[in-house]
Amino acid sequence: MEINCPNMQMFGIKTPIIKSGDDILKAVGAGFENAGISPQDNDILILAESAVATAEHRMIKLSDVKTSEMAKEYAQKYEIDPREMELILQECDEIIGGVPGAVLTITRGNLSPNAGIDSSNAPDGYVILLPENAQKSAESIREGINKQFFCNLGVIIGDSRTQPMRLGCVGIALGTSGIVPVEDARGCQDLYGKSLNITHKATADNLVSAAQIIMGEAGECTPAILVRGAPVDIVNESVEMHLFSRNECMYYSNISKNNKSLSKCQ
Amino acid sequence: MEINCPNMQMFGIKTPIIKSGDDILKAVGAGFENAGISPQDNDILILAESAVATAEHRMIKLSDVKTSEMAKEYAQKYEIDPREMELILQECDEIIGGVPGAVLTITRGNLSPNAGIDSSNAPDGYVILLPENAQKSAESIREGINKQFFCNLGVIIGDSRTQPMRLGCVGIALGTSGIVPVEDARGCQDLYGKSLNITHKATADNLVSAAQIIMGEAGECTPAILVRGAPVDIVNESVEMHLFSRNECMYYSNISKNNKSLSKCQ
Repeated sequence: MEINCPNMQMFGIKTPIIKSGDDILKAVGAGFENAGISPQDNDILILAESAVATAEHRMIKLSDVKTSEMAKEYAQKYEIDPREMELILQECDEIIGGVPGAVLTITRGNLSPNAGIDSSNAPDGYVILLPENAQKSAESIREGINKQFFCNLGVIIGDSRTQPMRLGCVGIALGTSGIVPVEDARGCQDLYGKSLNITHKATADNLVSAAQIIMGEAGECTPAILVRGAPVDIVNESVEMHLFSRNECMYYSNISKNNKSLSKCQ
Repeated sequence: MEINCPNMQMFGIKTPIIKSGDDILKAVGAGFENAGISPQDNDILILAESAVATAEHRMIKLSDVKTSEMAKEYAQKYEIDPREMELILQECDEIIGGVPGAVLTITRGNLSPNAGIDSSNAPDGYVILLPENAQKSAESIREGINKQFFCNLGVIIGDSRTQPMRLGCVGIALGTSGIVPVEDARGCQDLYGKSLNITHKATADNLVSAAQIIMGEAGECTPAILVRGAPVDIVNESVEMHLFSRNECMYYSNISKNNKSLSKCQ
């Protein structure tokens, strides 16, 4: 039978362990070679933020961190290493609250446990901060790969994060280059020719979630996924991620307003 | 170059428009045939909840709905058709709040705008409720496909939903059969041999998000995606989705407790 349908393929690109200051393009290039794949036009490369951040010297030795009084106070309240708490305070926009072991922050406009700081995939005694500017990182990586491989692809730098009221981590995009991160489907028609009113597709987030299926969370050293055949255009301008403020966000604004939910029976 | 890496493929299965009471297995079977694909062992089929719900007589004619006083009140407050509001009240566990055009509810334990009720992909004057029991639906569909095609695959029924503080819809799994919806990675080791402490992977949600990339939101009639090569085991027991209550949820419990966030500078 000949296959006759849209089809998208995702390749797991295993790289050498990326160390602080490594050239990420070199590591990814080695990964492509081992995988027997050459990136081509319209591919999309998804990179784990921890790999990018590590290459960009965002790995911090905890014993180098001086802790403030505020950090010690929060650390005790939330049962977090005070040096890590100090880094969280430095990195985040603000702290919303927390649970034992995790503070819920807003960091670069995103709801973010522990400001995205993670000790996973860092040597003992180290943590990895988020990339300083994931969009710039995506742009620079895209430029490098396009130049090296004579192609025109998109790049997404993604993170893994839990969701409200559900167990398990999903993907979110921190920065993109060469793709429109959120597709606007308003004005498109549904199956019955009616206009869709309020629909945007979080394409970049969905691609990172897809990548998570292969990337895993633990020790597989597959920080890069190459997507081929996605129905996503490559564009040449940089489009920033659109984030909502707390007031604009339907979830945040309503959850924070109501300590008790409105009973249906009132 | 011979490809030598994990690789996952996703096929978009276009079906005839599914009408109320249609046999979903027949529609999906026709879709496989048109696509030139036969499902095989270890494949995972993702189905859009609206298609499943429509087949299951969950499409409601608004002019048949009698509206209560409460529905009229909420409808006015949130600028929603009162008949749709009546259905939202019937379907949801409770109402958290809302914005013009959308009420934020908890429905079957999930944060859910408008109780998942949608007029998209329904004829004018109709809306589609969520499947009554998405897990049972997934089980029944899986049984049917396995029987018809002599295979052993997994089935996920997925929905599309917005996320807090981010623009755009992503996928969430409503019910699964044949796969473990959330993979427990605790105890696994990271790149440096350290144990991961708190990691679960929302595998089913990630697969639905991946499927959304091809499914689209608008009029493409591709309510089914077949995934091949995912590093996900097929299991023979039914595993329910794990949802957190509001108190257990780090996001919900902290956002609702703090109308003002704790300033870093306090």
